[in-house]
Amino acid sequence: MASISHHTTFFIRSTSNRNGQEPNKQKLHSVKINGTKSNVDLLSQDHHHHHHHHHQAITITSTENHVHVFEQQIRQNIPTKKQLVDSYRQGIIIEEGVGYRQTVVIRSYEVGPDKTATIESILNLLQETALNHVWMSGLLGDGFGATHGMMRNNLIWVVSRMQVQVDHYPIWGEVMEIDTWVGASGKNGMRRDWLIRSQASGLVFARATSTWVMMNQQTRRLSKMPDEVRSEISPWFIEKQAIEDEGPEKIDKLDNNARYVNSDLKPKRSDLDMNHHVNNVKYVRWMLETIPDEFLENHQLSDIILEYRRECGSSDVVQSLCQPQEHGLLKKTGIQQCNNHIGLNGNSLSSEIFEVNGLLGSLNQGPYSFTHLLQIKGEHKNEEIVRGKTKWMKKLSAIPFHS
Amino acid sequence: MASISHHTTFFIRSTSNRNGQEPNKQKLHSVKINGTKSNVDLLSQDHHHHHHHHHQAITITSTENHVHVFEQQIRQNIPTKKQLVDSYRQGIIIEEGVGYRQTVVIRSYEVGPDKTATIESILNLLQETALNHVWMSGLLGDGFGATHGMMRNNLIWVVSRMQVQVDHYPIWGEVMEIDTWVGASGKNGMRRDWLIRSQASGLVFARATSTWVMMNQQTRRLSKMPDEVRSEISPWFIEKQAIEDEGPEKIDKLDNNARYVNSDLKPKRSDLDMNHHVNNVKYVRWMLETIPDEFLENHQLSDIILEYRRECGSSDVVQSLCQPQEHGLLKKTGIQQCNNHIGLNGNSLSSEIFEVNGLLGSLNQGPYSFTHLLQIKGEHKNEEIVRGKTKWMKKLSAIPFHS
Repeated sequence: MASISHHTTFFIRSTSNRNGQEPNKQKLHSVKINGTKSNVDLLSQDHHHHHHHHHQAITITSTENHVHVFEQQIRQNIPTKKQLVDSYRQGIIIEEGVGYRQTVVIRSYEVGPDKTATIESILNLLQETALNHVWMSGLLGDGFGATHGMMRNNLIWVVSRMQVQVDHYPIWGEVMEIDTWVGASGKNGMRRDWLIRSQASGLVFARATSTWVMMNQQTRRLSKMPDEVRSEISPWFIEKQAIEDEGPEKIDKLDNNARYVNSDLKPKRSDLDMNHHVNNVKYVRWMLETIPDEFLENHQLSDIILEYRRECGSSDVVQSLCQPQEHGLLKKTGIQQCNNHIGLNGNSLSSEIFEVNGLLGSLNQGPYSFTHLLQIKGEHKNEEIVRGKTKWMKKLSAIPFHS
Repeated sequence: MASISHHTTFFIRSTSNRNGQEPNKQKLHSVKINGTKSNVDLLSQDHHHHHHHHHQAITITSTENHVHVFEQQIRQNIPTKKQLVDSYRQGIIIEEGVGYRQTVVIRSYEVGPDKTATIESILNLLQETALNHVWMSGLLGDGFGATHGMMRNNLIWVVSRMQVQVDHYPIWGEVMEIDTWVGASGKNGMRRDWLIRSQASGLVFARATSTWVMMNQQTRRLSKMPDEVRSEISPWFIEKQAIEDEGPEKIDKLDNNARYVNSDLKPKRSDLDMNHHVNNVKYVRWMLETIPDEFLENHQLSDIILEYRRECGSSDVVQSLCQPQEHGLLKKTGIQQCNNHIGLNGNSLSSEIFEVNGLLGSLNQGPYSFTHLLQIKGEHKNEEIVRGKTKWMKKLSAIPFHS
């Protein structure tokens, strides 16, 4: 027996005026919902969605058996109809009803020692806003962004490519607006894009794009998009792209001659997401940890491209390879191949084996770039998880790691 | 030259009615601020705080020199006067003007494979709400929760003890309310408490308490609370305690005979916080990773006590010791000491060396408890970082780590 009651009142501004002109022309919408009480029978599990999803006042009076599932539904409160606003998530539907905008404050634990948001935090926020977009659409099933139609067809989303460009990193306490929307990608895929803006200035700090395909959860094989699913999601598709398509940039496959190698990386419990897979953010961390600390101290990531090849499970042992770009500025320094195998200790600080002098001293201009590969070390052959490419800019003010 | 303009309208409910009674008696406050424009001279840096801190419309017209510092101040926008409401942080001042309440939605990346918030996420949210409380108070300097008076005296906060009790773990998408407030602790210390409640039901999910003292940032010695600082913070003190004081529970110091040992733990860049120290959350992760996976799969943390002894820097090498409680249920199973040294590989899954049969099979009742120690391995002697004690309950539905 549980008694649940809440009521919410919220007022939101549907559009923001960024350029400081015509401040009186901002549109104001107000939505007010008074709390009332109603009784809900456990056996009609959809009952609590009949009202607006922010508005529930429910008294449960039924057997204990169903309580756990039903309780979860109430606690999670996933809407089954499209919502235009979510005051708790500070999200609104934009772009003529198909895009999503969420206002977020950069939290104290999302920033690194230099008080700017880490790339991991930014990737986390991209994932969060994408899922909240689906949440608002009323299409979200129980899974990790899968629609009701996908769940009926036993399909899940898998990401095949992702690119993030960061011009400016938000700082602790800064208020950001994250826009996200989806579009078609070929016949069976979906593109999802993001724009991250300063709420105060409207300045775009970061752009991102990604492509997604569907996979059968049992067979683990890629699937065509069923008509049922297409009819769910295609009304949300728009053409706008956050990053201009320059044709697929080919990422070379690294081999054991890569300059930096970090072996024996093992997923921990805390690296797994709701899908029981190693989370994308962990991939990026493994890639970046293979770059020497001396470089990371003085540079900030400006562009990252990830090409996903296969899933990584919790029992896989992963190797991270990393190679500075051989053409362009880095080539001119005459660094010889070191071919260091960090190996043995996945926790090892890469800096300990970084012996190449002159790299940081002579190359102050940027941009620099690295090619990356994460692979699973098999007994007979290795299997690619993800290829990556990162581009870097010199930091304005570097803060040393070891003080 | 930068041009920044924004304007916000927000309406908030100052109190929530949790028990479902008298829903019409909820109080409504509305605050509306129209956007206007004003010019701010760079040389009067406090100018942008003259208005309510959500309301700025600033045109910068001055030399480039000051732009960086000033830009940061604008972007971060730390208030210099007490605020009663922060719509971006979804925070309000409660408890007759001295407590803080923030509404948060549990995000997709804050939950583990079982879709419930991890203890790390909960600790992160405690830190975030504590800092936002100081933020709202108008007392926050540039540091990690230090007041203006503390900064003038070169003082920082250091935590000496922390306890978190979790009855229920929030799930993905669940809306939570976190209350936090401070009180006196002895003559020179401060206590900070938290309550985490379900927004929908009002049910308390978790309680936490912590004690803090001041340290001189240069000498690294503990300091008395200067009168200047006491007069800043003591008006915020209240007596209420989230967890009843049962007298200080003594935590035994473990030695090398501890059953589980995880050595060679090294902080990474991403483990450092704004203070350039290994973050508390990392300590807890190191402690919990030393417990065998087989146990973690079937149990949830219900109580954790941390006693801090000294700081851990970025170049320290850490060892995590862990011992099941020797009295009570665990003693009856007749498990012999294994004294496994995991060592060598900090990334190693503890499960690989967990060979004690019967522990999980014969002990289904709970609660179980472990004693923990994190220490720095010195050449001649080890130095304690933190002692810990964790209590655990059997999970209702366990989800295996290795599928």
